[in-house]
Amino acid sequence: MKSQQELFDLFLRELKKERKKIDNASPKGLYKPVSYTLDMGGKRLRPVLVLTGANLFSENIEEALPAAIAIEVFHNFTLLHDDLMDNASVRRGKPTVHLKFNPNTAILSGDAMMILANEYLANSPAEKLPELLKLFSRTALEVCEGQQYDMDFESRMDVTVDEYIEMIRLKTAVLIAGALKLGAVIGNAPEQQANLLYDFGINIGLAFQLQDDWLDVYGDPNVFGKKIGGDILSNKKTFLLLKAQEKLQGEKKEQLQNWITKETFLPEEKIEAVTQLYNDAAVSDEAQKIMRHYHEEALKCLAKLEVEETNKKDLTELADQVMSRIS
Amino acid sequence: MKSQQELFDLFLRELKKERKKIDNASPKGLYKPVSYTLDMGGKRLRPVLVLTGANLFSENIEEALPAAIAIEVFHNFTLLHDDLMDNASVRRGKPTVHLKFNPNTAILSGDAMMILANEYLANSPAEKLPELLKLFSRTALEVCEGQQYDMDFESRMDVTVDEYIEMIRLKTAVLIAGALKLGAVIGNAPEQQANLLYDFGINIGLAFQLQDDWLDVYGDPNVFGKKIGGDILSNKKTFLLLKAQEKLQGEKKEQLQNWITKETFLPEEKIEAVTQLYNDAAVSDEAQKIMRHYHEEALKCLAKLEVEETNKKDLTELADQVMSRIS
Repeated sequence: MKSQQELFDLFLRELKKERKKIDNASPKGLYKPVSYTLDMGGKRLRPVLVLTGANLFSENIEEALPAAIAIEVFHNFTLLHDDLMDNASVRRGKPTVHLKFNPNTAILSGDAMMILANEYLANSPAEKLPELLKLFSRTALEVCEGQQYDMDFESRMDVTVDEYIEMIRLKTAVLIAGALKLGAVIGNAPEQQANLLYDFGINIGLAFQLQDDWLDVYGDPNVFGKKIGGDILSNKKTFLLLKAQEKLQGEKKEQLQNWITKETFLPEEKIEAVTQLYNDAAVSDEAQKIMRHYHEEALKCLAKLEVEETNKKDLTELADQVMSRIS
Repeated sequence: MKSQQELFDLFLRELKKERKKIDNASPKGLYKPVSYTLDMGGKRLRPVLVLTGANLFSENIEEALPAAIAIEVFHNFTLLHDDLMDNASVRRGKPTVHLKFNPNTAILSGDAMMILANEYLANSPAEKLPELLKLFSRTALEVCEGQQYDMDFESRMDVTVDEYIEMIRLKTAVLIAGALKLGAVIGNAPEQQANLLYDFGINIGLAFQLQDDWLDVYGDPNVFGKKIGGDILSNKKTFLLLKAQEKLQGEKKEQLQNWITKETFLPEEKIEAVTQLYNDAAVSDEAQKIMRHYHEEALKCLAKLEVEETNKKDLTELADQVMSRIS
């Protein structure tokens, strides 16, 4: 089995080839933002997972390249439209498309990326295409559902932890799971094996998002790469906030509520006070506990996978990353 | 072969079934605008063309229903995002989605529709899916390209008639052509026959858009259903304007330029003056000539179609509609 680095390189070579075609396509106003977005970099986690899923069951990973490109183009399309909807100004250190170009360009070029993703997918092995297209479309639709729930939650005051987990399952986890399963299907995995990989993906996807939430409050700013406390300042309904609202009682519950509704405050002061309330509610432990749970569930899926143990190493390492920075 | 009315009814029954599923899906914030859009009505020209394309070569038109739904959902997705980009307030007599709901909803629900379209397409006959998905994706991408050219033209002063024709080919004609060809492929038409239908669609698509341009100036307001002169007031670069700019010389060319750049004017006065300049340039004749050309080309495609002559009646009538209101 190829190493993750080899799969990454293979994917990047293919992406480069496709980007060259996009660079030459007209009208430029439509395709330049597509190329700009695909050139922003990133870990390319999802396309490498497509190739990994395929390679676990087959040596013929070339067949999985179109689906890998499709997943990456789709993922970048969601970032492009999400940034527009959230009015975000920076993505991977660069101006977002709606600012560098304009909002209409962001809408239309995003649409084009969604369509391009399907066009790439169409180059997958013909006999697999019905299953692949259904899985890809269902996954993509669920990502939209997750984004909608996320937007709905902003104005709702009664979001439960369970609802939050379902939201991140849709918004984040299904795409990781779908990437692995697309690869497995292309690699001729038996259905039950492909579904185990899907479940593995859901579990690590959930754990990764929860880790993101946790790092935003408890992470080392030098390692995290973002400022600590951003979610606290924007009252983002993360696992930590929802769990604290659930667990705190009386005066402390009220204090948390006050911080959430307060219109003017010193940022540092709010971060410190809310973090203290999180500590009072011991939500860091709660988060670590649930992350451990998803990590264990992920490993159980891997254990049932009927491939050589040495070939499970990369996915085990990926799952372990979930636990590596949170204690 | 089934009548157009029968195909229309068949499609509408299927659409109703699918709309019921969409009505029951969650989150409501995502799916209500989808249902709202699909419920707006319209002639359902494109999905009926999918079924017509199939029925010309096969009795088994049920197989073409998923593609018919896909084309209609895709078409409505483009209208939804176009209305947002154009900031249009009314569509088929109802408030547009970004006004009735909000712009973010319009973006995300539109995305969901694009994905839903592909999910429907995936239910087409498995052995045809690679060809169908490639044709559908390429067509969808060309529609985006057409929309981009249309937006580019707004700020360009040197658009040629040829560029305009290419723009409406992409923005309007390829979807009509693609609808017919999707149906033909599903109906097992030989490739050359499917391509004839595609070319027929391009020709009537071009003629229909040119007819739209013509009716905006020369139509009977009671029949046209829209106010006359809307394109003139907004300086829309239609065939008539571009041809007039090409043909007029000296003082009259200058007059036309003045009307286009004038910031304040009485609407009725501008419509009258520009129409007079169009008459001076005889651009109505030019438009009628080119529509007749595309009409003839469309009929030539039909003539080469190897199906029973009686079965060509509906498409001949469709082509004749292009000529029916323009003199």
